[in-house]
Amino acid sequence: MTRAALKPDTDVIEGVYLCTSLDLPDLFGPALAGQPGLRLYKPDDVPDPSRIRFALVWRPADNAFDAYPNIDLVQVIAAGVDGVLRNPSLPDGVVVTRVHDTEQATIMAGFAAWHVVWHHRHMGNYLDAQKSRTWDRTTIKTLRPPSEVTVGLLGYGLMGRTIARTVASMGFPVLAATRTEGNSDPGVTRVSGADAVKQVAAQSDILINILPLTGDTHDILNADLFAAMPSGAALIHLGRGPHLVEADLLEALDKGQIGGASLDVFRQEPLPSDHPFWTHPRIVITPHEASVTSPQAVTDALVRSIRELDAGERPTATVDKTTGY
Amino acid sequence: MTRAALKPDTDVIEGVYLCTSLDLPDLFGPALAGQPGLRLYKPDDVPDPSRIRFALVWRPADNAFDAYPNIDLVQVIAAGVDGVLRNPSLPDGVVVTRVHDTEQATIMAGFAAWHVVWHHRHMGNYLDAQKSRTWDRTTIKTLRPPSEVTVGLLGYGLMGRTIARTVASMGFPVLAATRTEGNSDPGVTRVSGADAVKQVAAQSDILINILPLTGDTHDILNADLFAAMPSGAALIHLGRGPHLVEADLLEALDKGQIGGASLDVFRQEPLPSDHPFWTHPRIVITPHEASVTSPQAVTDALVRSIRELDAGERPTATVDKTTGY
Ligand SMILES: NC(=O)c1ccc[n+]([C@@H]2O[C@H](COP(=O)([O-])OP(=O)(O)OC[C@H]3O[C@@H](n4cnc5c(N)ncnc54)[C@H](OP(=O)(O)O)[C@@H]3O)[C@@H](O)[C@H]2O)c1
Ligand SMILES: NC(=O)c1ccc[n+]([C@@H]2O[C@H](COP(=O)([O-])OP(=O)(O)OC[C@H]3O[C@@H](n4cnc5c(N)ncnc54)[C@H](OP(=O)(O)O)[C@@H]3O)[C@@H](O)[C@H]2O)c1
Repeated sequence: MTRAALKPDTDVIEGVYLCTSLDLPDLFGPALAGQPGLRLYKPDDVPDPSRIRFALVWRPADNAFDAYPNIDLVQVIAAGVDGVLRNPSLPDGVVVTRVHDTEQATIMAGFAAWHVVWHHRHMGNYLDAQKSRTWDRTTIKTLRPPSEVTVGLLGYGLMGRTIARTVASMGFPVLAATRTEGNSDPGVTRVSGADAVKQVAAQSDILINILPLTGDTHDILNADLFAAMPSGAALIHLGRGPHLVEADLLEALDKGQIGGASLDVFRQEPLPSDHPFWTHPRIVITPHEASVTSPQAVTDALVRSIRELDAGERPTATVDKTTGY
Repeated sequence: MTRAALKPDTDVIEGVYLCTSLDLPDLFGPALAGQPGLRLYKPDDVPDPSRIRFALVWRPADNAFDAYPNIDLVQVIAAGVDGVLRNPSLPDGVVVTRVHDTEQATIMAGFAAWHVVWHHRHMGNYLDAQKSRTWDRTTIKTLRPPSEVTVGLLGYGLMGRTIARTVASMGFPVLAATRTEGNSDPGVTRVSGADAVKQVAAQSDILINILPLTGDTHDILNADLFAAMPSGAALIHLGRGPHLVEADLLEALDKGQIGGASLDVFRQEPLPSDHPFWTHPRIVITPHEASVTSPQAVTDALVRSIRELDAGERPTATVDKTTGY
C-alpha cells in the first residue's frame, strides 16, 4: 500500500470480507460505510481481485485468500487469530492483525468474575434452595475467605490482565502464567517460562484459561494438568476449544479432582446436543459468548491497521506468526 | 475502664455475650479464649453483673442490658448496628462499636459483582438454555456494553466502596450516594446530600443498596424511587430488610418498571415459605449471606475497641448514635 492509496475522496483502498460462519457485511458494513478511502466487497461483488489489498476475516474458507494476489493485510475481527494463522491459503508475507478492544476485556472480566464467584460461593446451591423455598444459612459457614483461595490465570494479555484486576479486587490472590517475563499489577504474581502453566495450575483453587491457541497450548488442559491441581479445584475455560482434552475433564470431574467447570469454548461448536457436557451437574455451559467485540472496535482496528501499514509502520495490533498470537 | 484493668495476667476485664439468635460463645469463644486480660460469660454464668464492663452482641433481647449497670462498651459482631441502637435497654452513655472487616468487604464485592453480571448478562438464560441443550448465540447481540450501563450504589462506606472498585473494574460507570461530601475512587462519581439516593437511583440501570438502616433510610426502596429509575432497571438489595417496601417491589416488577431483583435481606427473616418473593421468576433470593465476618475479625475488633477505650480514646469503630451508623 502506498501512502497515496489512502487519500480520502481521491483514491480508495479496496478490501474483501472473508468468512464462512458470520454475515460480516451485515455486522460491520454499517460502521465501515462511513470510512472515507475504504471500500469493502463481498467476494462475489469484487470488481477486480488484483485491486484487493486487505481482508476482514473470521473463519475464512481454506482457499479463501487464493483469489487475491495483492493482499497486504488480514484484519481478524476478534482477539484470537488461531483459525486464520492455520489457514492454508494465507500468503506468507501478509500482515495479520487482531482487535485490541478494552471494552471487550471488561466484558470478559465481568464474565470471569461471575464464574469465579459461582464456584467460590457455590451460587448454584442458592438457586436450588430458592426452588424449594429453603432458607439455609449454612453455606456461609463453610466459606473459605477469598484471601485463602488462589485464582490462577493461564494467559495475562489484554484479557487476562483485565480479568486479574477484577478478581484481585474481590480479595483473591492471583497467579498469572505467561510465556515471557514482564510486569504485573498489584495483587498479581506473574510466573513465566516453559513450566509456568503447570506451576500456576498446581497452586490454583480456581483456574481460568484465557490463553491463545498456539502449537504450545493445544491440549494444554489435560489429565496431567488436572492431576497437578489442588483436589476439587474449579476450571473456567474461556480460551479456545482445542486447549481442552474433553474426555480428561470428564474423568477429573467424576473423580472429584476437578470440583466444577465453566466452559465457554469447545472443540466442536455448536456443542453437539448429545455431548455429555450439556447434562453434567457440575458443568456450566455458555455458547462462546464470554465476550464480544463491538462493530465499532473492529472498524477502528481495521482503519488503524491500514493507516499504520500505509504509513510504512508495523501495525500495533500485528500478530507474531512465530509465536502464534 | 482504667488502664490498669487491661494489664494481662494481673487483672481481667469481664464481658457478657448478649444474643437471641446465634450461639455467640460457640462462634467466638475459641478465638476469644486466647485473649489475655479478657473474660466473656454467658448471661447465666456471670459471677457478678456489676463487674461486667462490655458486651458482645447480636440481636440482644429488649431488656438484655438491664442486668449490667457498669457496661461501657457494646461491640456488635457485624457491620450493621441498627438492631442494637434500637434496643430499649441500651444505656445512654455506652459506646457502641461495629466490625470493620476488609475481608468481609471483599466477600461482599464478589457477591455484588455476581449479581451485577447476573442482571447485565441475563446469566439465568444461559442456565436455562443448558437445560434444553440449546446453543443460542443471540444473547450477546443485545448486550449493552458495560460503559453504557450505570451501576448505582446507595451507600459508599466500607462495603459500598469495595463493591464500587470491583464494579468499576468491570467497565461500568459507578454512581455512589452518600450522606456527606467526600472523596471517591477513580471511575466513581459521588453524589451527596438529602436528595442523593433519588438522584443516583434515577440514573442507575443496576442499583445496589448497601445503606445502613437508620431513621432516614427506612422504607427508602419504595414505589416513588422505583418510578424514578430507568424502566427495566435491576435492584440488588444487600442492606437491611426494612429498607424495602416489599409490596412496592412486587408491583414494580409486575409492571416491568423493575426488570429483576436480587434480595439478600428481608423484613422477616427467615423469609416465610409462603412469601411471593420465593417463586417470582425475576427475583433471586439468598438467605442474608451476602457476606460474613470471621470470628477472628470480630475478636480483633473487640480487643481493639477495649484497648482504645481503656487508653481513654474514642474507639475507631465507634458508631454515631445520632446518625445511626
Ligand atoms: N471466549 C471468548 O469469548 C474469547 C474472547 C477473547 C479472547 N479469547 C481467547 O483469549 C485469548 C487471549 O486473548 P488476549 O487478548 O488476552 O491475548 P494476548 O493479549 O495476546 O495475551 C496472550 C497471553 O497468553 C500468554 N501465553 C501465550 N502462550 C503461552 C504459553 N505457551 N505459556 C504461557 N503463557 C502463554 C502470553 O504471554 P506473554 O505475556 O509472555 O506474551 C499473554 O500473556 C485469545 O487468543 C482467544 O483465544 C476468547
Ligand atoms: N447483607 C449483608 O450480609 C450485609 C453485610 C454487611 C453490611 N450490610 C449492611 O450494609 C450497611 C453498610 O455497611 P458499611 O460497612 O458500608 O457501612 P458504613 O461504612 O457506615 O457506610 C455507610 C454508607 O451509607 C451512607 N449513608 C448513610 N445514611 C445515608 C443516607 N441517608 N443517604 C445517603 N447515604 C447514606 C454513608 O454516607 P457517608 O459516607 O456520607 O457517611 C456511607 O457512605 C450496614 O449498615 C448493613 O446494614 C449488610
